[in-house]
Amino acid sequence: MSQVGIVGIGHSKFGRRDDVTVAELAFEPFVEAVNDAGIGQKDIGATIIGASPVYMTQRSIAGPITEYLGLNPQPVWLTEAACSSSAAALRTAYALIKSKMHDIVLVLGVQKMLENPTSEILKIMGRTGDVQWEAPYGTTFANYYAMYAQSHMEKYGTTSEQLAEVAVKAHHYGIKNEKAMFQKEITIEKVLESRIIASPLHLFDCCANADGSSALIVANEEQSKRLSDTPIWIKGLGAATAPFSLLTRPELSTLTSAVNASEIAYKQAKVEPREIHIAEVHDCFTIAEIMAYEDLGFTERGKGGEFVKSAYIGGKLPVNVDGGLKAKGHPIGATGCSQVYGIVQQLRGEAGKTQVNGAEVGLTHNVGGHGQYCIVHVFSR
Amino acid sequence: MSQVGIVGIGHSKFGRRDDVTVAELAFEPFVEAVNDAGIGQKDIGATIIGASPVYMTQRSIAGPITEYLGLNPQPVWLTEAACSSSAAALRTAYALIKSKMHDIVLVLGVQKMLENPTSEILKIMGRTGDVQWEAPYGTTFANYYAMYAQSHMEKYGTTSEQLAEVAVKAHHYGIKNEKAMFQKEITIEKVLESRIIASPLHLFDCCANADGSSALIVANEEQSKRLSDTPIWIKGLGAATAPFSLLTRPELSTLTSAVNASEIAYKQAKVEPREIHIAEVHDCFTIAEIMAYEDLGFTERGKGGEFVKSAYIGGKLPVNVDGGLKAKGHPIGATGCSQVYGIVQQLRGEAGKTQVNGAEVGLTHNVGGHGQYCIVHVFSR
Repeated sequence: MSQVGIVGIGHSKFGRRDDVTVAELAFEPFVEAVNDAGIGQKDIGATIIGASPVYMTQRSIAGPITEYLGLNPQPVWLTEAACSSSAAALRTAYALIKSKMHDIVLVLGVQKMLENPTSEILKIMGRTGDVQWEAPYGTTFANYYAMYAQSHMEKYGTTSEQLAEVAVKAHHYGIKNEKAMFQKEITIEKVLESRIIASPLHLFDCCANADGSSALIVANEEQSKRLSDTPIWIKGLGAATAPFSLLTRPELSTLTSAVNASEIAYKQAKVEPREIHIAEVHDCFTIAEIMAYEDLGFTERGKGGEFVKSAYIGGKLPVNVDGGLKAKGHPIGATGCSQVYGIVQQLRGEAGKTQVNGAEVGLTHNVGGHGQYCIVHVFSR
Repeated sequence: MSQVGIVGIGHSKFGRRDDVTVAELAFEPFVEAVNDAGIGQKDIGATIIGASPVYMTQRSIAGPITEYLGLNPQPVWLTEAACSSSAAALRTAYALIKSKMHDIVLVLGVQKMLENPTSEILKIMGRTGDVQWEAPYGTTFANYYAMYAQSHMEKYGTTSEQLAEVAVKAHHYGIKNEKAMFQKEITIEKVLESRIIASPLHLFDCCANADGSSALIVANEEQSKRLSDTPIWIKGLGAATAPFSLLTRPELSTLTSAVNASEIAYKQAKVEPREIHIAEVHDCFTIAEIMAYEDLGFTERGKGGEFVKSAYIGGKLPVNVDGGLKAKGHPIGATGCSQVYGIVQQLRGEAGKTQVNGAEVGLTHNVGGHGQYCIVHVFSR
């Protein structure tokens, strides 16, 4: 079976981007990615855009983006799976290439969230949860993850200090990533002193809403080898869903979508969790990273809180050493491809100050909503 | 190369559907489609939902729909390309099957638009056009198509009576389709007497916003032959884009996206336009159907106005004999699969009162936005 590779990557500065339209924002990683791959617009057979359309003033953003990037008349459409929208776009691109419908596909994650006031963002995001039965009780996104944290603490004795260390680690590496929204170190004390958003989550346990974009050039095996000396291969793809309403979930301290998606991806890639050298996991809240360690099999169930010490560079398995969602910011549609950007840099050996020596196998874990979607990819050089 | 077939179809009643949630609305065609195919939830490898998320109170609708239909833990995501969202979903399903990632995929088009007042729908829809340069001048969707009509009339002498006949034909067949929103015949006089929405388009030149849903079970060749005595094969797929802002389009009387998409689809299917026996085209406004006749090569450029007489059953090429968007209503995300539903019925010989004798090759033409996207599929039995 022929392989599918990544041969170009790009990443905008994440943060408040009132300086650009959504099309201009998409242009930034696009230029980096096509230059990286050494291709032009005419080489791109199709474009898949990962985004959550509900935050943006411009509707159906694939139209203006395609025009602005000079990609007409090639086909384009958008994929949405809440916060895992651009992982769904990469999965679509893989299928388009593997099916031989296209040789080279552009995957673009892009999101402008900060056109809305925070109150509006909270409302939109809360409505990704159950509008009929849960939202009437005031559920917001932080509420869902606070319940997961309460459950994890009660069941396994996970502490607020362990949660806080996830944020400390993220900021520690975020200052080494110039594309990250936040550029300062924090301490466990600072996290614990920050105000409670939804108990037990403090402000600094939560990632920030952001604007941002990211791009990948994905190609079939022949084109990958022609365009790059170091194509990064997509070795395993797993996607799964979990019940959307909390009342139907038997357990709140795990995301079964992540367990199922990673099992499928590991099996296809023929690797075990212990063979992963570097990972990007979906740390929308600090508890989410701790749950990911367990759901992905990086550590035993219940040991996620302890594992954060092993997730630094030099530890057992470095995780989110680009700063993660916590320090980079979380422009919903751009996050999935941003994770892949980080892994491709690592597997190419181009990660600079945060390079993990000998990184040859990497993983991304992109969660949508409060766990109703999860998409996992395994990569190797 | 192995084929991809359609082995199950379903269609809700289109119209005002305040009686159901979006998940309940999705359930209606889902049940019909799985029963038609003779399969259960566990047979479905993945689900792709075509919808435009910006109209609905519930955000990220793939989550609640998947849970309600009993499809967890299988993967799901949504595709959006404005009014061609569920054609993009079918294209994605084809790629997922052709790439051997899944054997059977559920494609679901679903939309609730009427949760919003008409003024809000107009605003959202207008913002599918250019928010930066066009919307400030008050562009709505009808405006765009009115400009196309003005251009077509000036260039080719197309008349208001010819436009009106497209609507008359749609309603003539709509009364034979119990799933259609409108169930009454109209006359050319009635169309011309209805109030002007955007000159030269009258109220009855415009399709109606609606709620609705439609479903397809798509399968690989082996499963198609196992599940159905009359699988309908996807023989050609074309997708293309056109510039989004009108100022960059050299010509307003044609959609180059439709020309390009159909050329690709014809080539793959190895058919000429004259070999199509039955077609479903995107008649969001009457002028759109006339442009489609020309863009798809059913008649010469400029002769679209005359061709409507040939688009009845018994004519050269019956078009939209299920009532089209005009009589069925246009629940954005559901329209693409609704077109395929009509073609599959015809090619199976199960179209009842509107059966076209000897229909063996069919085409769907699903336009997104005001022509920035177009997706064409060619089918055969």
